[in-house]
Amino acid sequence: MRRKNSRPRRSECPLNAALEMVGDRWSLLIVRDLMLGGQRTYKAFLAGGERIATNVLADRLAKLEEIGILGSVRDPSDRRRIHYKLTAKGIDLAPVLIELVLWASRHERTAAPKELLDEMVHHRRRFLTRLKRQWSAME
Amino acid sequence: MRRKNSRPRRSECPLNAALEMVGDRWSLLIVRDLMLGGQRTYKAFLAGGERIATNVLADRLAKLEEIGILGSVRDPSDRRRIHYKLTAKGIDLAPVLIELVLWASRHERTAAPKELLDEMVHHRRRFLTRLKRQWSAME
Repeated sequence: MRRKNSRPRRSECPLNAALEMVGDRWSLLIVRDLMLGGQRTYKAFLAGGERIATNVLADRLAKLEEIGILGSVRDPSDRRRIHYKLTAKGIDLAPVLIELVLWASRHERTAAPKELLDEMVHHRRRFLTRLKRQWSAME
Repeated sequence: MRRKNSRPRRSECPLNAALEMVGDRWSLLIVRDLMLGGQRTYKAFLAGGERIATNVLADRLAKLEEIGILGSVRDPSDRRRIHYKLTAKGIDLAPVLIELVLWASRHERTAAPKELLDEMVHHRRRFLTRLKRQWSAME
């Protein structure tokens, strides 16, 4: 299936490429849930704090899989159930998520746990290493 | 004028807050043009490589100004002309732009100048300091 985003890019700028892939209000929340929240299934994403609509979720999951940010496998114990997981390209979005979180925390009233922010600021490398290790363990 | 984004946030997560502000395909391209490209006017943004539509550009400029990412001043020599500039909150998006650029450069075929990528990777602090200095000089 070729989708809209298979069209030629608007420009060759890497920022533009990134925004054509994840520049919307939902994609990086799904990446967040996979990366930090432990959600793996359609149902778990639907239950997220931002109340994503089913059609939007289905669209974003298909797009994220198509562009290689996540992959899906059938649950061996229940073939009807699909489990999603980040690819290497998906886990590599961690620094983008960190900077967006830190930027919003500096300029807006939000509810990020202080320990998490401190770790992102002062122990970024450790934080990234830990994320990658958790992610490899799930492979 | 109260706009859509004045509504309560979907959640208190800082990532969600960031995406409600700049989670779209255009806003960060405008920030890029102000930060790195030297564009200051509506006409200059319109001429950008991604061919933004006039109505989308007008909408994004108004939204970015409302949420405090950019400000506008009338050109003293031509009062009909408006100049845009980043605020401190806007220039503080530089690390987000850097990570998006680096992520896309690692995983997609793009046309980023190698020297720019090298500076972002190996001399990030110097790069950020230079951006902030240029920005202060324009104040």
